Amino acid sequence: MATTRIATIDSTLRDRLPMQAHTLFEAKAAKDMTFEDIAKQLGRNEVAVAAIFYGQAQTTPEDVEKLSSILGIERVKLHKELAGYPFRGQVMDMPPREPLIYRLYEIVQNYGYAYKAILNEKFGDGIMSAISFSTKVEKETDKDGNNWAIITLRGKWLPFSRF
Amino acid sequence: MATTRIATIDSTLRDRLPMQAHTLFEAKAAKDMTFEDIAKQLGRNEVAVAAIFYGQAQTTPEDVEKLSSILGIERVKLHKELAGYPFRGQVMDMPPREPLIYRLYEIVQNYGYAYKAILNEKFGDGIMSAISFSTKVEKETDKDGNNWAIITLRGKWLPFSRF
Amino acid sequence: MATTRIATIDSTLRDRLPMQAHTLFEAKAAKDMTFEDIAKQLGRNEVAVAAIFYGQAQTTPEDVEKLSSILGIERVKLHKELAGYPFRGQVMDMPPREPLIYRLYEIVQNYGYAYKAILNEKFGDGIMSAISFSTKVEKETDKDGNNWAIITLRGKWLPFSRF
Amino acid sequence: MATTRIATIDSTLRDRLPMQAHTLFEAKAAKDMTFEDIAKQLGRNEVAVAAIFYGQAQTTPEDVEKLSSILGIERVKLHKELAGYPFRGQVMDMPPREPLIYRLYEIVQNYGYAYKAILNEKFGDGIMSAISFSTKVEKETDKDGNNWAIITLRGKWLPFSRF
Amino acid sequence: MATTRIATIDSTLRDRLPMQAHTLFEAKAAKDMTFEDIAKQLGRNEVAVAAIFYGQAQTTPEDVEKLSSILGIERVKLHKELAGYPFRGQVMDMPPREPLIYRLYEIVQNYGYAYKAILNEKFGDGIMSAISFSTKVEKETDKDGNNWAIITLRGKWLPFSRF
Amino acid sequence: MATTRIATIDSTLRDRLPMQAHTLFEAKAAKDMTFEDIAKQLGRNEVAVAAIFYGQAQTTPEDVEKLSSILGIERVKLHKELAGYPFRGQVMDMPPREPLIYRLYEIVQNYGYAYKAILNEKFGDGIMSAISFSTKVEKETDKDGNNWAIITLRGKWLPFSRF
Amino acid sequence: MATTRIATIDSTLRDRLPMQAHTLFEAKAAKDMTFEDIAKQLGRNEVAVAAIFYGQAQTTPEDVEKLSSILGIERVKLHKELAGYPFRGQVMDMPPREPLIYRLYEIVQNYGYAYKAILNEKFGDGIMSAISFSTKVEKETDKDGNNWAIITLRGKWLPFSRF
Amino acid sequence: MATTRIATIDSTLRDRLPMQAHTLFEAKAAKDMTFEDIAKQLGRNEVAVAAIFYGQAQTTPEDVEKLSSILGIERVKLHKELAGYPFRGQVMDMPPREPLIYRLYEIVQNYGYAYKAILNEKFGDGIMSAISFSTKVEKETDKDGNNWAIITLRGKWLPFSRF
Amino acid sequence: MATTRIATIDSTLRDRLPMQAHTLFEAKAAKDMTFEDIAKQLGRNEVAVAAIFYGQAQTTPEDVEKLSSILGIERVKLHKELAGYPFRGQVMDMPPREPLIYRLYEIVQNYGYAYKAILNEKFGDGIMSAISFSTKVEKETDKDGNNWAIITLRGKWLPFSRF
Amino acid sequence: MATTRIATIDSTLRDRLPMQAHTLFEAKAAKDMTFEDIAKQLGRNEVAVAAIFYGQAQTTPEDVEKLSSILGIERVKLHKELAGYPFRGQVMDMPPREPLIYRLYEIVQNYGYAYKAILNEKFGDGIMSAISFSTKVEKETDKDGNNWAIITLRGKWLPFSRF
Repeated sequence: MATTRIATIDSTLRDRLPMQAHTLFEAKAAKDMTFEDIAKQLGRNEVAVAAIFYGQAQTTPEDVEKLSSILGIERVKLHKELAGYPFRGQVMDMPPREPLIYRLYEIVQNYGYAYKAILNEKFGDGIMSAISFSTKVEKETDKDGNNWAIITLRGKWLPFSRF
Repeated sequence: MATTRIATIDSTLRDRLPMQAHTLFEAKAAKDMTFEDIAKQLGRNEVAVAAIFYGQAQTTPEDVEKLSSILGIERVKLHKELAGYPFRGQVMDMPPREPLIYRLYEIVQNYGYAYKAILNEKFGDGIMSAISFSTKVEKETDKDGNNWAIITLRGKWLPFSRF
Repeated sequence: MATTRIATIDSTLRDRLPMQAHTLFEAKAAKDMTFEDIAKQLGRNEVAVAAIFYGQAQTTPEDVEKLSSILGIERVKLHKELAGYPFRGQVMDMPPREPLIYRLYEIVQNYGYAYKAILNEKFGDGIMSAISFSTKVEKETDKDGNNWAIITLRGKWLPFSRF
Repeated sequence: MATTRIATIDSTLRDRLPMQAHTLFEAKAAKDMTFEDIAKQLGRNEVAVAAIFYGQAQTTPEDVEKLSSILGIERVKLHKELAGYPFRGQVMDMPPREPLIYRLYEIVQNYGYAYKAILNEKFGDGIMSAISFSTKVEKETDKDGNNWAIITLRGKWLPFSRF
Repeated sequence: MATTRIATIDSTLRDRLPMQAHTLFEAKAAKDMTFEDIAKQLGRNEVAVAAIFYGQAQTTPEDVEKLSSILGIERVKLHKELAGYPFRGQVMDMPPREPLIYRLYEIVQNYGYAYKAILNEKFGDGIMSAISFSTKVEKETDKDGNNWAIITLRGKWLPFSRF
Repeated sequence: MATTRIATIDSTLRDRLPMQAHTLFEAKAAKDMTFEDIAKQLGRNEVAVAAIFYGQAQTTPEDVEKLSSILGIERVKLHKELAGYPFRGQVMDMPPREPLIYRLYEIVQNYGYAYKAILNEKFGDGIMSAISFSTKVEKETDKDGNNWAIITLRGKWLPFSRF
Repeated sequence: MATTRIATIDSTLRDRLPMQAHTLFEAKAAKDMTFEDIAKQLGRNEVAVAAIFYGQAQTTPEDVEKLSSILGIERVKLHKELAGYPFRGQVMDMPPREPLIYRLYEIVQNYGYAYKAILNEKFGDGIMSAISFSTKVEKETDKDGNNWAIITLRGKWLPFSRF
Repeated sequence: MATTRIATIDSTLRDRLPMQAHTLFEAKAAKDMTFEDIAKQLGRNEVAVAAIFYGQAQTTPEDVEKLSSILGIERVKLHKELAGYPFRGQVMDMPPREPLIYRLYEIVQNYGYAYKAILNEKFGDGIMSAISFSTKVEKETDKDGNNWAIITLRGKWLPFSRF
Repeated sequence: MATTRIATIDSTLRDRLPMQAHTLFEAKAAKDMTFEDIAKQLGRNEVAVAAIFYGQAQTTPEDVEKLSSILGIERVKLHKELAGYPFRGQVMDMPPREPLIYRLYEIVQNYGYAYKAILNEKFGDGIMSAISFSTKVEKETDKDGNNWAIITLRGKWLPFSRF
Repeated sequence: MATTRIATIDSTLRDRLPMQAHTLFEAKAAKDMTFEDIAKQLGRNEVAVAAIFYGQAQTTPEDVEKLSSILGIERVKLHKELAGYPFRGQVMDMPPREPLIYRLYEIVQNYGYAYKAILNEKFGDGIMSAISFSTKVEKETDKDGNNWAIITLRGKWLPFSRF
């Protein structure tokens, strides 16, 4: 069945991805593991794990140890590739041309002002942080057998400082 | 307290908003109602209500009747202004310059590929629909008194057709 | 039922539309006619009729006469507004932000090179004309009650001249 | 005659194409097959086949088996290159600079609002899916010997959810 | 017949056109004259006349006198509106969205380097002036009754200075 | 004298040019031939020849044979490189930064609407084809010894279809 | 002396500014007050005050009371204009064309990665908040009589959440 | 603890960085030094040091000597790589996609006009120089244990010349 | 003769120009004065005077007095319109579409790096100020009767600070 | 002293520069010559020499001979690399991100319309050529020891043709 296929690195992105992406995705393919598999063993959320692969999230030394053993990657090499601070946002062209990701962008485009109005009325003048932030993806199947994807965004509310 | 302030129309957006936005926001200000107040009476989600105000969602004739009576707007006028099909996406400049909305955009920018990888592994080749879609906003206060905003996106999974 | 609602002019586009768009859409709303209704009486395809409303297609004097009588618009006024040559392409921002239209754009983005390969192999080096061109929209309901939209594009094949 | 020439990979696109594009187009050239030839043997539409070559559509394991034998490509290699989920939309610059593809873009630009009006009146508030979607290309020769290209787009109608 | 229709000002361009454009096109419509008619009486090329209407070319006081009498416009008003120096290039969005004009743009896009190579080999290192420049449009009908448009561009060759 | 210098490939464009451009320009340099020389032997217009070099025009098998012998390029290699269908428009950045080519772009920018008005009045509603199209470059020296470049654009007139 | 001149609203920005900007700047001009004058009486930082004028910061009801009396603006009017939540970021085109503001932009452009490296090493993986944030402007005159502007940015450090 | 991690070169930036960046960052990683460590030994501000690494600031021959010995880089190699004049601004895409740097950009976007108003009132018509300019980064911990980043920008005031 | 014509405000720029531009250009037209005439009486350079008209340069109170009397404009009105600090850079779209101004832009585009190399070698690492800056325009006629325009840019050299 | 440092090729530009740039700058560095040194020996202006290095100006065979001997470059190699016609404008990104070059761009942005007004009044309707053009850079030190850079632009005046 198509859904058992694992996510791999796409060759059209190769130049935009940091070094560790190549190492990690290759090992993942060799082990034939899904992100869910890795996340369970690593003890982190699967979105966070995918974000690490794409260079969008940081790892602790313990994460590196575990990833090294889960994926069978040489420790020193992985430590070196994951040593720095992530440079987030380099991977994606905006607006996204990939249809799946465009749909998320379209939600922001269409509902952005509505979210702002609701959030302002609920919390006052401020923002929902994208830094003190976590997210998860869930799957739901309704009674007619249709699948639904549920993405939850949870961010700390930061009120604008008064000065 | 600042958070009891209601959301109003911003004068810098005036030329980009459809006619009904002016009518609806003005009535909302006159009634001093939050979107939550209106949503409860209308029987729809508050994000959907704000989306209606911004011209991003459609109303049924019953919605119009109710809105007319909730907000004290002349029925014929409101029916006329809400008669057509929404032209979504006209309101927002992308990338968004508004800080609150930019944070949502940044989440797509940073986690877009991670979401794609997770969704593909969970569901196969396809997209999460932004059309067969609903969303909600919730508020959570943690034990330290910090507020957290929680946005849930729920969309039907659409597999790519084989042809 | 929602689908009996007629298409009207969207107020957020008002400044980008030619004068006749306002006249024609207003009369259409007053007569409560669909484009299909008008097309049947005019003897042209409904997409062509909508294109006339948006200033994307030309009318003959006979079309103007008929439109004037079908929609109850003063003839002289309509003749004047439809006197010139269309300035096509002014209405739409590209990439389209409207979700329905974006999907068409996405089809070009994703399948453009595939269409080129197939058309080149079928016809040689050239293009499918968008000028010697017609198009139509059809509705199909499958056995499960799902609706399908079918858009047909038919353009003359123009081989590149040899010189 | 020019039209018997087969479509090959263009060297100016080489860096934007996924790995499998190089493998597949090279084998196609070596076998001197058109997409129609391949499509017939594979049992899929020729546009879908070209889309696979350009990395815009997914293959089942059976497709890969067949492609491997039709085109004489080593199975393991092809399986590996086609293992992931497509990253659609990376190939094309928008607006397209290629004249053939620009004509399709121009159709969206000029007739986009007309399609929206007609589709809304026929189906209500929603979109034609580009995911639950198929397309085909046909050739027609009129009585004067002119060739016409006919592109059919068929997408499921998705009504906006009410929430 | 459609071709006897005269060119008028398009209402979607109204804000981008200089004041004289409104005056001149209105008078032209009232007199029902083509640019060819006006050009003959003015003693200038019809493209130059259209360029004057669009604010892209300058007039001498004698031109203004003649235009005033040909088109029945009050002299003082026309003198005032045509008193300054043209601000060329403000009318057109680039890339042009109008299909007719896009075709000219496409010629530059596709043949630009070819023209450069040929011109360099014929004239050396320099440019064809767009200032010491004239242009004309001609119509040709071939033996099969097809019409051909012929646009001639004639510009002084300016070699790069040596310093 | 500077004008006898032949056009060569520019190294700053190297990555944007198709494979055959490198082969052809190198052979041209080795043979020290102008495009006029090649065009005469090939029996095609020199602009078309330069367009072939830049990947903007197609060749017949006979053209390839001749080019192979005129330029001393191995036949099989040239046949292979010229086997596909041109992907036009990939070479040029728009707006063009090269001064010579910018002047052509500026002509479209400044005179585009004037050309449209004149062409519409002469031919009706339609476009001048850039596909059923040929072009040539000529040199003229006036009585004061000034050189003038004359570029002729000749395209078939295509009226918009009525549907 | 030039520096005693007060800042006023610039007429070229008029359409991009929210309603209160017109009211506030006009009153400021009538009272001939600097932002420093107003800030002292209001008890807030002068940058915050200017930000309020430009619609980039929120006011409490007490601020509105005070501003009303400091500037002699009718209370009800000012309350109404300052009632909503700010829509920040609408005023400025980026990159800024104004030379003074461009210099700030250039600092980000040139030193952005250096700031990131230093901040990461000092604080770990995170960001300096622009929301839990204050700023001030100071003037310093060195011993040679040169003036120096000192802008201080102070933002809370937010570490990326681990999830 | 995460904050003791040193900043390294990010592999996604590799093509945009000047040669010395690779040399310097590699040596820094090998020595496991922070910018603060290096700055102390070099006698310059740590932001300036990071700017040198990213090719945004110039070094004197003495700086090169010291850097060579601090970081253990061969002198001749380093002298050669740092011999020219910096080409600033090549590293960063604007708007910045990196979240940390975007926050700085957002400060300019939101407070730019406020800064201008305050600076104009304090200094008259002119700019704060980004050339006769220095900057520093400081860390502050408040009584609740929260960290605050403080960035100071200090630039010479340059009044516009009168001419 | 054409050159005696005075520069007036262009109606296509009307919305982008500050209020004083309308007042000043109208008065200039009424008085039929060139910028040179005004500059002589005002005692400033004619480029500076034109820059004042376009809102790109500041005036002293004495300038306003003089301009008021030279151009016959009511003093109070002019003082009010020229009271603020200029918002430079709002007038021009970049790249400039106006041919005369494009040529200046092209000089920067083509010779920018050459200027940088020469200035760096003459002055070291720094910039030529555009603030401590003056400019003038001169006319020269060579022995063949050709006119030459000479634009001089004179800016203070600012070395980058060491910190 | 910093100013005796010579300009070298910047490694971040390497891919955008033509082949000869690498050859010439390397030889210049090896000879430790400034552009002024080379210009004197070559008998051309130093800006022209730098423009040759950056591929923005053409050389005669005599220039190539001299450059070959001045810089100690093999003649045949240099002849080959300088054989073609320059493709100007490929080097620079616009708007320029380099601070020195941005200042020149800003001058065009701020004073462009002023230059146009002055030039039109002095010369009539036309442009200052950037082709029949020369430029130079001079250094001036005022009595306070401040350095000033003076850039002179001298272009032939080209009146628009009447046709």
